[in-house]
Amino acid sequence: MTPEAVTDVRGDALRLLTSGLYVLTACAADTIHAAAVSWVSQVSFQPPLVLVALRRNSLLAHSVRKAHRFALNILASDQTALAEPFLGPMTLSAGEQTIAGLMFRSSSAHCPLLTDALGWLECRLAAEPPTPGDHYLLLGEVTGAGIRRADAPLILRDTPWTYGGVREP
Amino acid sequence: MTPEAVTDVRGDALRLLTSGLYVLTACAADTIHAAAVSWVSQVSFQPPLVLVALRRNSLLAHSVRKAHRFALNILASDQTALAEPFLGPMTLSAGEQTIAGLMFRSSSAHCPLLTDALGWLECRLAAEPPTPGDHYLLLGEVTGAGIRRADAPLILRDTPWTYGGVREP
Repeated sequence: MTPEAVTDVRGDALRLLTSGLYVLTACAADTIHAAAVSWVSQVSFQPPLVLVALRRNSLLAHSVRKAHRFALNILASDQTALAEPFLGPMTLSAGEQTIAGLMFRSSSAHCPLLTDALGWLECRLAAEPPTPGDHYLLLGEVTGAGIRRADAPLILRDTPWTYGGVREP
Repeated sequence: MTPEAVTDVRGDALRLLTSGLYVLTACAADTIHAAAVSWVSQVSFQPPLVLVALRRNSLLAHSVRKAHRFALNILASDQTALAEPFLGPMTLSAGEQTIAGLMFRSSSAHCPLLTDALGWLECRLAAEPPTPGDHYLLLGEVTGAGIRRADAPLILRDTPWTYGGVREP
């Protein structure tokens, strides 16, 4: 039996797709939601659009849809530890100064930005097209951005975690 | 002036998003289209869905929409040279045995698979949601896959090329 005769290696092959690991933040009303996300890709140059896929019925997805804005905090290759507190979704009051002990500031568009991250993209929710599947596809138009230093970004494959594969119904 | 006071670093920040580099192939009628793509992400576990963003009006996008199927050939970290011929889109007859000198075979669903690639995902076009922007968002349900050896995938950042940023209108 050759490897190609194996009938279902879909999960393992899906986990060969390359992705980063980011901290997505959104502030709706006076509540901040934050969580690590990895299903992220640019999908348009003009206008510059970023797609994030968020689990349906997650607090994070609801928060982004309510706020109509979100920020992607881009972590550096040595910031695996910074991502860890966000593996579970996090909720806090907009009045607080830190998230999981990490300093953040509010962007001009009220998106919480982790001040230690390598960089950030601030997005206006531009579309949420109806799609099949267990995640919402949210398209954000990039309205602001920043890079704080020259460094390489964190790649999911270089962390202890994975996000991808097949779940049977 | 702090880095965050820079008004438009959107392009540079977008290029910090992590992506892979794949060879997408599709066979419509008797014509094979192939090109390197990097805006790719899994977007659902159940069913397993993969999103690819393809330039509107590209031959590749038309071919996928016509064939209703495509394959993502996943390259290994040492296969940068294999990607190079596909930086421009490639068209050939389904009767040919090689693409750019590279051997391929046809999957059971008639998607051309590069036999030297690290692995592959074969997808049925599941949705093409209407979205803004200069790329089509094509969602493929993963119907087949293969991994040929244990290796790390190619990351766009580790190649001489980029695909991302902002284009002014």
